[in-house]
Amino acid sequence: MNDRHAGAPMPVEPGDVHAAAQRIDGRAHRTPVITCRSIDDIVGGRLFFKCENMQRTGAFKFRGAANAVLSLPDGEAHRGVATHSSGNHAAALAEAARERGVPAYIVMPESAPRIKQEAVAGYGGRITFCEPTLAARQRGLEEVVARTGASVVHPYNDARVIAGQGTATLELLDQAPRLDAIVAPIGGGGLLSGASVVVDGSGEDIELFGAEPTGADDAKRSLAAGRILPSIAPSTIADGLLTSLGELTFAILHGHGRTILCVDDDVTRRAMRLLWERAKLVAEPSGAVALGVVLAHPEVFEGRRVGVIVSGGNVEMPGPR
Amino acid sequence: MNDRHAGAPMPVEPGDVHAAAQRIDGRAHRTPVITCRSIDDIVGGRLFFKCENMQRTGAFKFRGAANAVLSLPDGEAHRGVATHSSGNHAAALAEAARERGVPAYIVMPESAPRIKQEAVAGYGGRITFCEPTLAARQRGLEEVVARTGASVVHPYNDARVIAGQGTATLELLDQAPRLDAIVAPIGGGGLLSGASVVVDGSGEDIELFGAEPTGADDAKRSLAAGRILPSIAPSTIADGLLTSLGELTFAILHGHGRTILCVDDDVTRRAMRLLWERAKLVAEPSGAVALGVVLAHPEVFEGRRVGVIVSGGNVEMPGPR
Repeated sequence: MNDRHAGAPMPVEPGDVHAAAQRIDGRAHRTPVITCRSIDDIVGGRLFFKCENMQRTGAFKFRGAANAVLSLPDGEAHRGVATHSSGNHAAALAEAARERGVPAYIVMPESAPRIKQEAVAGYGGRITFCEPTLAARQRGLEEVVARTGASVVHPYNDARVIAGQGTATLELLDQAPRLDAIVAPIGGGGLLSGASVVVDGSGEDIELFGAEPTGADDAKRSLAAGRILPSIAPSTIADGLLTSLGELTFAILHGHGRTILCVDDDVTRRAMRLLWERAKLVAEPSGAVALGVVLAHPEVFEGRRVGVIVSGGNVEMPGPR
Repeated sequence: MNDRHAGAPMPVEPGDVHAAAQRIDGRAHRTPVITCRSIDDIVGGRLFFKCENMQRTGAFKFRGAANAVLSLPDGEAHRGVATHSSGNHAAALAEAARERGVPAYIVMPESAPRIKQEAVAGYGGRITFCEPTLAARQRGLEEVVARTGASVVHPYNDARVIAGQGTATLELLDQAPRLDAIVAPIGGGGLLSGASVVVDGSGEDIELFGAEPTGADDAKRSLAAGRILPSIAPSTIADGLLTSLGELTFAILHGHGRTILCVDDDVTRRAMRLLWERAKLVAEPSGAVALGVVLAHPEVFEGRRVGVIVSGGNVEMPGPR
């Protein structure tokens, strides 16, 4: 148990994650944990893949979105929820809102991949397209909220979302006992923050690592600098990990003294291929970054039992439709 | 329980499958069973995917190969095992032999896909290439056996292999209780024969269907005709299902009064895509045929709990390596 920062109050506590687990029970999937002997032979360790690619809407994001939507009082919920996102959070929020019977307003750049646009629309999300800049996305969101009164659910800088994401790690600890380490990808930091709260609250001696693409290493730099350094012109195939830390996720990750390990895209590509060829799992690039880190840092993981969060699987199948 | 043919002695009995399960315990994986809400919504039933694509060597074939190799007395085993196969059985036999520390001689057509050649070589199989005709394959196998004294392990027309394949269904019944139906692909009939023995011996009221590509429907025609009708110029993307029934598999499937349902390749392609996009599972075409049959015959499966065997996942990932 890491208690060196035990004095600092945290925006999310273990009890919040347990409450989220109860709230989303029966709605989010308890995703399987898969092992693969031939990948284990390659890395020289024992890996436990937490298959959040098999989560509803194809990514862990459904956990946080569902927890946020279900946390809203009826009086607020009926006006709906809103977010700006080009990715998995948008689909997750749309599905969570649909399940509660309230509208979800999604502000999305026109440049978002077709598969993600279709997913949001398929889950009943009401899409407003905007220019592909952060300013345009924020302006679009403000307009939607002013018009509808919807509650904003940020993709990661939201305590309800972080607590929801933590449930993935809570399950993993139960499904794969006696882990030595856990690796989770980090973009905005929701998944890793939730994992931090759970691991450090577990009383178990588990090393938790954030996995970040070298081409978008703002989290590593921010934690080293002790302040949020935004991502400037990030470049990586892991399109889900382009975002910068938020205030809440920075506070949690810095407070817990988290370590980030980086991986180059070519190793992440190799990780995607191994997941495909050996484990028969479809992972999107961001979902393969954690395995990429294990491949890139054998000195850290050799001979250990390692939980690896495969965070999402929303990648288009090549070939004719 | 189907006992209409209870009087006829069967070449494989439930006890053989239970013995195989004990023999391969700890060697073959107990593969996971995955559910996928969005595919369930499409088919209007509840599907339980038995993930034999996650079996060692990427297909259920490892079960039968391991059972056959482990059944050999030491005096025979040390001379090795041999087979002719361009596919998953060859890789499975090579790996099972390697694990026992004996050689595996594989006669393989030069036209076999590179990924399958590499897999066999990677598992330590000793490959003899031949012309891509059945006659050349059989001649090649006879030469190898004459030279080495290896024991032939046929891909499906072998009671030890059939009993081994049956263990997949044995596990499925345990992992997904109260099934109404099970669908398993049929090529040579080893997997379906093993499933037949298990289902009819289970005492449970489960309908078992063979899933066959329309372009290679020799099993359906053979069972209707009451004799083995060989596959003539079969044409299907399901390259694992091109083979014809053998005497043992015909006897079992005919004896158990098995029903075969066919599916066109375009529906199998759709099934592959659904497994990829919704379940995040990599299935080779033959591994998607069972889901294809569920999609093609909604009147049979709607509203039911259906076990679907995803028999293999050895398909190349597109793009640069």
